[in-house]
Parts: sequence; C-alpha cells; structure tokens
Amino acid sequence: MTIRVTVWGENVHEQKNKVVAGIYPDGMHNTIAAALNKAGGISASSVVLQDPEHGMSTERLAETDVLVWWGHAAHGAVDDKIVERVCDAVWGGMGMIFLHSAHFSKPFKRLMGAPCNLTWREAGERERLWVTSRHHPITRGLPDHFELENEEMYGEPFGVPEPLETVFVSWFQGGEVFRSGLTYRRGAGNIFYFRPGHETYPTYHDANVQKVIANAVNWAYNPLPRIADPNKAPNVPVGSTLEPVVERGPRLHHDGEEGLR
Amino acid sequence: MTIRVTVWGENVHEQKNKVVAGIYPDGMHNTIAAALNKAGGISASSVVLQDPEHGMSTERLAETDVLVWWGHAAHGAVDDKIVERVCDAVWGGMGMIFLHSAHFSKPFKRLMGAPCNLTWREAGERERLWVTSRHHPITRGLPDHFELENEEMYGEPFGVPEPLETVFVSWFQGGEVFRSGLTYRRGAGNIFYFRPGHETYPTYHDANVQKVIANAVNWAYNPLPRIADPNKAPNVPVGSTLEPVVERGPRLHHDGEEGLR
Amino acid sequence: MTIRVTVWGENVHEQKNKVVAGIYPDGMHNTIAAALNKAGGISASSVVLQDPEHGMSTERLAETDVLVWWGHAAHGAVDDKIVERVCDAVWGGMGMIFLHSAHFSKPFKRLMGAPCNLTWREAGERERLWVTSRHHPITRGLPDHFELENEEMYGEPFGVPEPLETVFVSWFQGGEVFRSGLTYRRGAGNIFYFRPGHETYPTYHDANVQKVIANAVNWAYNPLPRIADPNKAPNVPVGSTLEPVVERGPRLHHDGEEGLR
Amino acid sequence: MTIRVTVWGENVHEQKNKVVAGIYPDGMHNTIAAALNKAGGISASSVVLQDPEHGMSTERLAETDVLVWWGHAAHGAVDDKIVERVCDAVWGGMGMIFLHSAHFSKPFKRLMGAPCNLTWREAGERERLWVTSRHHPITRGLPDHFELENEEMYGEPFGVPEPLETVFVSWFQGGEVFRSGLTYRRGAGNIFYFRPGHETYPTYHDANVQKVIANAVNWAYNPLPRIADPNKAPNVPVGSTLEPVVERGPRLHHDGEEGLR
Repeated sequence: MTIRVTVWGENVHEQKNKVVAGIYPDGMHNTIAAALNKAGGISASSVVLQDPEHGMSTERLAETDVLVWWGHAAHGAVDDKIVERVCDAVWGGMGMIFLHSAHFSKPFKRLMGAPCNLTWREAGERERLWVTSRHHPITRGLPDHFELENEEMYGEPFGVPEPLETVFVSWFQGGEVFRSGLTYRRGAGNIFYFRPGHETYPTYHDANVQKVIANAVNWAYNPLPRIADPNKAPNVPVGSTLEPVVERGPRLHHDGEEGLR
Repeated sequence: MTIRVTVWGENVHEQKNKVVAGIYPDGMHNTIAAALNKAGGISASSVVLQDPEHGMSTERLAETDVLVWWGHAAHGAVDDKIVERVCDAVWGGMGMIFLHSAHFSKPFKRLMGAPCNLTWREAGERERLWVTSRHHPITRGLPDHFELENEEMYGEPFGVPEPLETVFVSWFQGGEVFRSGLTYRRGAGNIFYFRPGHETYPTYHDANVQKVIANAVNWAYNPLPRIADPNKAPNVPVGSTLEPVVERGPRLHHDGEEGLR
Repeated sequence: MTIRVTVWGENVHEQKNKVVAGIYPDGMHNTIAAALNKAGGISASSVVLQDPEHGMSTERLAETDVLVWWGHAAHGAVDDKIVERVCDAVWGGMGMIFLHSAHFSKPFKRLMGAPCNLTWREAGERERLWVTSRHHPITRGLPDHFELENEEMYGEPFGVPEPLETVFVSWFQGGEVFRSGLTYRRGAGNIFYFRPGHETYPTYHDANVQKVIANAVNWAYNPLPRIADPNKAPNVPVGSTLEPVVERGPRLHHDGEEGLR
Repeated sequence: MTIRVTVWGENVHEQKNKVVAGIYPDGMHNTIAAALNKAGGISASSVVLQDPEHGMSTERLAETDVLVWWGHAAHGAVDDKIVERVCDAVWGGMGMIFLHSAHFSKPFKRLMGAPCNLTWREAGERERLWVTSRHHPITRGLPDHFELENEEMYGEPFGVPEPLETVFVSWFQGGEVFRSGLTYRRGAGNIFYFRPGHETYPTYHDANVQKVIANAVNWAYNPLPRIADPNKAPNVPVGSTLEPVVERGPRLHHDGEEGLR
C-alpha cells in the first residue's frame, strides 16, 4: 500500500524573493514532496496556486489520500469554492497537514472554526521543539526534542480550538512558547498542524522536520473508502424504523423528503 | 449581575404554519426569552431574521452576553457578513447556544468546521434525554433523565467535532440515539448545542428544557471583557523581545508591519 | 508484522455456571482469542486469573502488544502488584482493550482515575450500537449500526473521564443509552473500552463484535519500542542545560540526584 | 456565597530546611490560605500531613468545597485510605487544585491514571508562563504572560493524560517548556494542575500566582450538592423499566441485588 500525497504550494515567494528562490530552487512544495518520496510507502507530488482550480480538481482530490498545505502571501487568492471542495474531501476522509503560515489559510480557518491567530517575529532565532505526547506515531524516530537554529517566532495564545492531542510545544530564544504540533479530526478526516517552515530559512531541508511530516502523513491517512457525500442528512421514513413507531402529532415534512438547510 | 441574553428566532414557520403558530403564538423566540426571564439573573429579549441586519447589529452583539439561536427553514437567508460578525463576537467571548435545527445554521457550521449532519424522522415519537456528565452545571436541578413525549428524531452519526464534554445523550423510541448536549469553546466563547425543539411540538414550554437552556446561559456566560479584535495577530518587534535576541538571517517583513493573511 | 495479543480471562463463571459453560465451552478468553486469530495479522493467545501471577508475568507483558481484559466476578482477586505491572506496561506503550464488566476491573479503574460506575439490568433485552465517529479505524467494515438481540443493559451516567473519542453509543430496549465505545491514551498506551459481552449471552460469537475487537487491536497497537521505565523523572544537571543557565538561589537537591516521590 | 477552601500542606521542609522556613515562616499552606482569604468570596484554612488523618477527616472533606494540595518530600507518608477518601470527595464534586511537586502526590497520580512524570532542574532560573486559553476563567485579571525570576524547571514530556484544556504553557531559561496549567474533570469534580511553587523560592508570595490559585478555586467550585456515594452502580429491576421489557434468556443476578465488583 502506498499513500498518495499531494503537496499544495503557494509558490509566490519562490518566484519573487531571491532568498527564498535560493533556498528552494524547485519550490518549497517540491522540496517537501521529494522528502516524502524518500520516506518509503509514500508517493508524493505537488500542485500550486497558479494551476487551474489551484490544482485542486475533483479528480485530484479523489486521488489524494493526504493533502499537505503551505501558503503565506496569497491566502486571499484561493477561491472559496475550492476551499469548500477541499473541506468536503477532508470531511469525507482525506487527511490534511497544515504547515507554518497555513494557520491563516482559508481551509485551516474553515476547518477550525476559530481565529487561528498568534503573535510573530521574524528574527532568525532558535526554536526548540519538545515532544509532549510520548511515543505518539507522529514522533516516531525522533528524539525528545530537536532544534531549528533559525526560525520565525510564533507565540501564544494560538487561537485554535483545544486539540485532540498536543504533540509538540516549541521554545523560542526570544522568550515565547507555542503549541507547534496539534491533532484534530473533522468528519472522517485527520488533521495535523505543524508550526515550522518560514520561507527564508532552510527548514524543509531539515531531517527531523521531514520525519515529522512523513510521520504525520502516515498518521493522517484514513484507509477507509472516501465518504461520497459527507454532508448528507438522510430522512428515515416512519415506515422503516428499527423499532415500531406509530406516527403522532403534526408534521412539516413528507416521508423521504429532503430536510431544510 | 444580570446576564444579557438575545434569543434569535427565524420566525418563519410561526408565520406560515398554523400548527406552529398555535403552539407558539408569540413566536418560539419570545417563548424562550420569557422562560429565561423567569429563571432569575437573566435579562432576555429577542430579535428575528426579518429585522434589519437580522437583529444582529454590532451594537446589539456588544450588549449580548449569550446568544441563543433557533433556525430551520431559512438558514440560507442569513447574510454571510452577519455570520462572520456573530462568529467574531463568539471568538471575543460571547456565549452561544444552538437549539435543535440550528445544527445546520450558518454560524454553527462555521464555528464547528464540520458537516454537522445527522439522520432525522418527524413522527412525534418519544425522546428521553440522559445526563452523561454528572453534576455538570448545565444539569443543575435536573433528574438523571427526562422525557419529551413528542419530538422529531435526530440520529447518529452526528457530524460534529469531538466535544469538550458530552452532557446529554438521547434515546429515541424508533431505535436511534443522539449526543444531544455538547459543549465547545471557540476563541474566548463558550458554545452549547442542545438538540430538542422541533417547531410542531410544545418543547420550549417544557420545564426541564427551559431549565437546561437557563443553565446553559449561566454556563456559557464569560464575565471577562469582550476581546476587541479576536483575529489580531500582532508582530513582536525584534527590539522589544522578552529575552535578548540578535537578529539573524534574511527577512520578508519590516518591524511592526502587518502580517500576511 | 503480526500484532501479539494476550486475552486475559477471569475464567470463573465458565467453571461455575452451566449456562456460561454451555455458550463458551472453551472459556470466553479462548473464544475471543480464536476470533482474533482469524482476523489476519494478529497472533492471539489467552491467560487466566488462576495462572501464576494471573498470567501477567513481566515476560508475558513484554511480549504482548495489546492486552484484552474480561473480568466480572473476581475483580478483587487480582493482586494489586499485578495491576501496577499491567499499568506500567500500558504507560510504556502496550495497547489495552477492556470488555464489558471490566469497567469495574482494577486496571481500568486505576487507568481512568474515576469511579467507572453505571446502572445495569440483566433482562436479555435488545442492544443497538450506533457508530458516532464515522470512518474511525475501530468501525472499519461495520454498518452505521448493529444489534445484539440479548444483552445486559448498562446505563448512563457512566462514571469515566471524557474520552478522546466517542466511537459507539448504545440504545437499549428498556429505555437507556450508554457510551459503549470510548478511546483513551495513558502514557504511550492506547486504551479502548467496549461495552458488550455479558457472559450468559453469545456476544463474543457475534461477527460484528469480533470485528470491533479486531479493529480495536489494530488501532491500539503502538509499534514504537516499549518505554523501559515509563515513570522515570530524570534530573537535568545545571552543567548540561541546552541554553546557558547560571545557577542562582538556594537548593534542596544535588546535581543528578533522584527526585523526591 | 463563600467558597470553603482547605489548603493541605506537607509541612516537612518548612520544619527541616532553614531557607524554606525563612521564606514561609508560617508554612507554605498558611501563606496560600492567607492569600486566598484576601481574594474575596473565599474562606480558606489549612491542615497538614502531621494532623490526625492528615487533616482529611470525613467531616473536614464534607465541609471543603475546594481542596488545594502541596506535597514534595513525603508523598509516601500519605495513607492510602486517606487517598481513596480524598478521591471519593473529588468524584462527588469537590474541586481540587494540585500545586507544583504535587504532580507526584498519591491523589494526583490516582486521579490521572498515568505516570505524571517529567524532567526537572533546580537552578533558580527564570520561568515565564504564557496564557494559551484566552479569557479562560482561570486567567481572569492576568496579562498574557508573567514571569517568576527564580523557579525550579519542570520539562516535557509531562506524563499526564490529554487535559480538557491547556491554560498555561511555561518557557524556561535553560531551554525547556512545560504545560503548566491543565484542567481535568473526574466524576463531578473539577481538577486543576498548576506548576509553579518550589519551596526554596518565594513563589506563593507572587501576586500573579496568588491570582491564578484564587481564580482556579472559583473555577473548580461545584455548587451542586456533593454526591453521597459516587461509586454506586444501581441495579434497575426488570419490573420498573422505563420502556416495556419482557425478560428473556438466562440470568446471573436477582432483581435489585448488588452487582459484582
């Protein structure tokens, strides 16, 4: 069994900013996909914002087991219809991993139902990630902490709902902390947020970061068949109840009709 | 201290359907508000979909400690801008209670980040609600179970995220079950979903149902001052870090500038 | 990879009660183990209360990936030292599944930190289990509900902590409900409680029940190496801090000494 | 309404160690109780390990709305019967706050069902606590972070179950982080763990720390009457079911008899 991963890249700063282009000459998305392809058991490729339908066609989503999302400068350029389509795929069982500045991406905010805000500072300072859930599958092969010598700081309070599990918490040189690895479930879809990855630093070339993302792909993968319509709210006709029910009282609806939305 | 409650009513079936008008001659929203006003410590009034801005002006929201929402036939008629405004108020600390068919209302779906779907049947069957969290504040003064002789059935799976707490689970005569009382937190706002309340039955005249809603208002109330901008993501300039940081590496941003969204 | 399962059976009513002996001539534990061995990818065997160390030797636990526990009449006969040993294995990463009346077993109460009580009735009534977490791995291959024609009733409130996930909720003919499939994590160990399995009914011969237990084994399995001492609280000497720290103020302890317990 | 608080102090290092005696001449427990008495709406007094029944008589617990617990050197000296009695009170609705080294106290480990271990260093380094749950009642009146100039370090991974809510996360000068404010519910009892408070530093004289503890007392207080027997598992006789049930199949038990434990 091979897990099919699509890495979604915004692909803006790689084109406009010489520093970013220097670190990620193939684009961040391709760097991440290449690392996943080396992890074993994963087949990853990438799409970008500039592709038709932002690369998120119905067909592509149907063939994606886990979607990895990185965006920063152009969150607003993502079409709302595509956002709903991505969320439908998650609710139907597609795994999804949000990286770094994707905390403010439309799909993340849509799936969290919360502001997803934080404080931040771009000073190339040291970040140290601590494992807070021992032997969680996402920590496989990692030490109890690891460092990124240069990173952007993200600080608490992080405006997200209480997670299912807190997997990593970050220490920053400047004095802040951040819950940097969080799991969620929405519908049948497993979601992981992972903090590191500012585009002016070589974070996605880091072996530990690559390991976390590969582990998260394996964790997020739901092998059950995608739910065709994850929003369906079927009527159960009175004539086919599991236990005998005699209809009583006034009604608004007819048997088997669509509910109100 | 008095908790200021606004009950939001869709006010459609009360106008169009004789059965509903007969049970709730003053509208469901006014029945609910009147019950809350008798509970003590609560000052409740109502607004309706048909009011300017659906009754959800910035001023009104600023004066609402807890918002109660009932809608069914006209979810789609609620303006998206108003939905965002309501969510902002929740994230800033306003409590919110969603009743029955409001599981498919725009603000609930927005705050949950999930499909919020279920199965349903309108047969006037018996529902029995069981307390699953003993001595939770929302169960104050209630027995360990109570019945509604005529209700619409809602069945699992209920497409919502795992709650903070499951407070009630319902048994239905026709053979289904439903997690009928669930708590959530989004930003600084406490959220409670409560299942009963189909408009063709006298559910909001029931003493136990009224008690649950009044308890939930007290539970959801956040006495801390509303957060002015719950979406703010402030930059922390390098010059004012809590611990000494020497800036290193390349940057995208200037000190104190707005982050990308 | 094969998951090594030990099924722990109390083995009391099978010996004393003709009805139970008739339904489970090989003992409930062996019926459960045999079903797991047919599921694929699992190698299961059983031990019983009456074995030396209740079958829970240090060696046996070290070779057990997932432990399944059924007990009812003789919870008190389980040695407290063995209970601590089992809990240590769970904290170190062993998965554990508690069945039915094991809600009152010593290891379950120890791991939950809660009363684990409920209401009950032995009337051979119908139970219907509803999936509440769509496409959860423990529901793999199951319909959205299934029935057991004769079961003991367990009713809410169930005195357990809020679970990570609620996977099943049961409907009972007599009017009660019960959260009958709950997940937890303690240390590195995944825990699943599954309600059905009164010994006077043929529940563990049921194909859906067998499927749930096999799915739960796969879900609970933690492939990472067992943590040798899951209770260790190591001192980090001042001389080996990750960031420079100058020791200040008075101390109780010397570098590297054992902490107080 | 006044909340009745008992502060439980181990009272060992105050008697044996000159530094501790110098900082807390009245004992840590009395310093904490005095601060709570100044907070308004709270009536606090203290008991110590050396009191008869460790000060935890049935009567005392019945008159305690919220129990605050500090222990370090003598966890093992606390009688197991008293631990069970304290846990029964929590399950029945008593609030409980565990401070600092009480992470290894018997009642905390009993209520968590987990190892509760961590890493530690006694170097008088700086700790900075960050609020991670905005406008949570326990953060009332606090800034988004505050500092303790001298504290013992506690580091992740902290071996506790996933909390209901993470309220504070700590940054340490030496490079570690710690989830330093966590909420739980066990039975009807609200539980809060709060990290700071090493006995060789003046932590409990700090205004912010005092505010957190007073807020936590208000949060943990459950105004509903204490549950008399939180471990009761009543039989529901067949003759008194809510819905008609015809008894079927073989039985182990007689109507109304005590269940097996």
